[in-house]
Amino acid sequence: MDITKDELKKFQGLLRDNTPDQYINLQPIQRGGVLPPESRKTLLSYGDGYSMCDFCLSGRIDEIEKPAVGEFLKLFAKWIEMDFSMPTGASREAKKIIIQQLASKVSSGVKPVLVVDGLAHYSTFVAAESAGVEVVEVPHDGHPTFKLEAEKYADVIDQVKDDSSRQVIAALLTHADYLYGNVTPPEIVSKICKKKGVPFIVNGAYTVGIMPFSGKKAGADFVTASGHKSMASSGPIGMLSCSAEFQDLLFPRSTIEGNWSGRSFNHKITTLLGCPSVYGAPLATLMSSFAHVVERTKPENWEKEKENARLLASTLLRIDGVKMLGVQPHEHTMMQFETEPFEEAAKNAPKKGFFLYNELKARGIVGIFPGMVKSMKLNTYGLARAQVEHVGQSFIDIAKKYGLTVY
Amino acid sequence: MDITKDELKKFQGLLRDNTPDQYINLQPIQRGGVLPPESRKTLLSYGDGYSMCDFCLSGRIDEIEKPAVGEFLKLFAKWIEMDFSMPTGASREAKKIIIQQLASKVSSGVKPVLVVDGLAHYSTFVAAESAGVEVVEVPHDGHPTFKLEAEKYADVIDQVKDDSSRQVIAALLTHADYLYGNVTPPEIVSKICKKKGVPFIVNGAYTVGIMPFSGKKAGADFVTASGHKSMASSGPIGMLSCSAEFQDLLFPRSTIEGNWSGRSFNHKITTLLGCPSVYGAPLATLMSSFAHVVERTKPENWEKEKENARLLASTLLRIDGVKMLGVQPHEHTMMQFETEPFEEAAKNAPKKGFFLYNELKARGIVGIFPGMVKSMKLNTYGLARAQVEHVGQSFIDIAKKYGLTVY
Repeated sequence: MDITKDELKKFQGLLRDNTPDQYINLQPIQRGGVLPPESRKTLLSYGDGYSMCDFCLSGRIDEIEKPAVGEFLKLFAKWIEMDFSMPTGASREAKKIIIQQLASKVSSGVKPVLVVDGLAHYSTFVAAESAGVEVVEVPHDGHPTFKLEAEKYADVIDQVKDDSSRQVIAALLTHADYLYGNVTPPEIVSKICKKKGVPFIVNGAYTVGIMPFSGKKAGADFVTASGHKSMASSGPIGMLSCSAEFQDLLFPRSTIEGNWSGRSFNHKITTLLGCPSVYGAPLATLMSSFAHVVERTKPENWEKEKENARLLASTLLRIDGVKMLGVQPHEHTMMQFETEPFEEAAKNAPKKGFFLYNELKARGIVGIFPGMVKSMKLNTYGLARAQVEHVGQSFIDIAKKYGLTVY
Repeated sequence: MDITKDELKKFQGLLRDNTPDQYINLQPIQRGGVLPPESRKTLLSYGDGYSMCDFCLSGRIDEIEKPAVGEFLKLFAKWIEMDFSMPTGASREAKKIIIQQLASKVSSGVKPVLVVDGLAHYSTFVAAESAGVEVVEVPHDGHPTFKLEAEKYADVIDQVKDDSSRQVIAALLTHADYLYGNVTPPEIVSKICKKKGVPFIVNGAYTVGIMPFSGKKAGADFVTASGHKSMASSGPIGMLSCSAEFQDLLFPRSTIEGNWSGRSFNHKITTLLGCPSVYGAPLATLMSSFAHVVERTKPENWEKEKENARLLASTLLRIDGVKMLGVQPHEHTMMQFETEPFEEAAKNAPKKGFFLYNELKARGIVGIFPGMVKSMKLNTYGLARAQVEHVGQSFIDIAKKYGLTVY
């Protein structure tokens, strides 16, 4: 079908409105994915399709020596303190592979069950659903802290075990959740899992690459991580790490050997549809950003990040009526606030709920969803102290401008 | 685990050796994935993780209005002349979704079978394997043309149909194969499929975005395409297009509604693990490059591309002993040659098989696999006439330098 030039013009040379070099971006799921300058060069250098495969010998990206992908994956596994790491499309894809492969070991007629925290990301539910696996949730304590009752993994696992028609394939913990930024220590859950003989999955999509993390300390059998969310990478790229005992289950080789056309594919990995080669540019940026990520996740640097987040939180709480959700003291830079006073102010503002977005943007700040004033999620990760102070002062100034009480 | 600065330095600011602005790159699967200049800007602009989601209202990237993803997908479907198009991670992921969803309709106890061409890409086999689907091949005529015997789809389908324990879920045709660059007209296969009542999948990973293509003319129920291979996009990004009748089967909504934590995910698509949101930067480049792709696939431009390829082929065939594989006249810019004389020359060359790579690189040409001299695959797509002439002359000069006979 012929397409007119006018129809195409709109998309050609598409540019983003709010780039991080122009604005302070508070978007809660974007802060951990901002590329350091050296990786922007890497992105351009590897920007063309399949650029990672120039010197691929074996037909598997995880074995490429130039650039040193194989060496990098070993280093990544060492850093995260797991036996083995493999790139995947995203943390969600890693979860899907784990869930589906564990479920494949369950006898026919028995329903596989995944036990997850009640704060789990939607993609955990959907990954399980797409693998035909039932999900059972471990509760949190509800509004306003939403604190996970982690010790209840034991009861929930036992309840499923009491039913012979169902089998717990694994327990999954969302290390930090994306709604409230609550961080649950994995050790509590891993001890329960060990005792119950249940494999333990840590979804580290919002922690690995953000804060200090050790799979060994966490007691994890599997760790999923996200490059575009939390390892300063261009999307999509995730990392699936596991202990040695699960490596063959997760990454089985193709059994196709000598088909009609005489070809064999037994070096290819079926769960990765052969080879995760399609992740060239994203993987290149993940590798390039790794030094930056290793540095920023050192305990002393993470402490500074938390200080910044807490500074902004305490500033926002000076606005009468603003409340913070989630566990206190807050252990993550992702935060959610109930902002009823802004909702009230919106009623009289000419642009209604959009006033906050516009006022912030006029002050060089973006990432608060346009029109959203009832509550807001934001993230200070990676911002300089002065930027955090500017954000806090801006909220105070806007509050005052719209007649809110500020203490 | 602590990682030393030395261990990290190697990866930081990783740069590719052979970028297309420095070298003429003949790499057969990369030529169609080279970004036009405007899309390199787009790549940088959308380079950070989740940058496409700034103004996402519904939680689904295919519905985003800013940038106009929803509008773009409709335009793409119009261009490819299919009812519906959805981004996926790659053509292989698109194939997996189609195969898996078609197989899900087969009665238990019956073995689902996919009929494919004997030139099918390995990822077709692995996608079927991972979905528990048997693959049966339609033969080609072997060395040196490897011409697909497309009319034999009828017999192969009938043979499977004769066996009540097996069911043909679909027939798949690799429109252009990556080994010899043979192009098989889909119309031959679609007619057979229609007669036999079998859904028809066209793998357009090496044709959609490269040459004129119409899903309607092809008679396809499904078309898979690859952004990083053939639509001038940064990887990974594919496109799954289908006729309206299969849309719900391929993209089912989650049935999770009101779980313990009160959340519903029924707007999410299970086969995409919720939302293909992870493809931000790659999708942005696909959208940006679309104008370029629409232009280059116009018949008159594709004719020029084929002329360039045939010019290089005829030049290479002037070297005594060099033979071209695949169907003649050749209908694609991907080509494979048997280069026995270069293999002979390598025996006496100081760097053995690497001489060809080094000699070409010294002339500003890369993409022929280092050490590979027995046969070579290359692609002239998107090169200027002068570049193609330079490549041809370089091969001739190298041949003469190493004492080969040139006519």
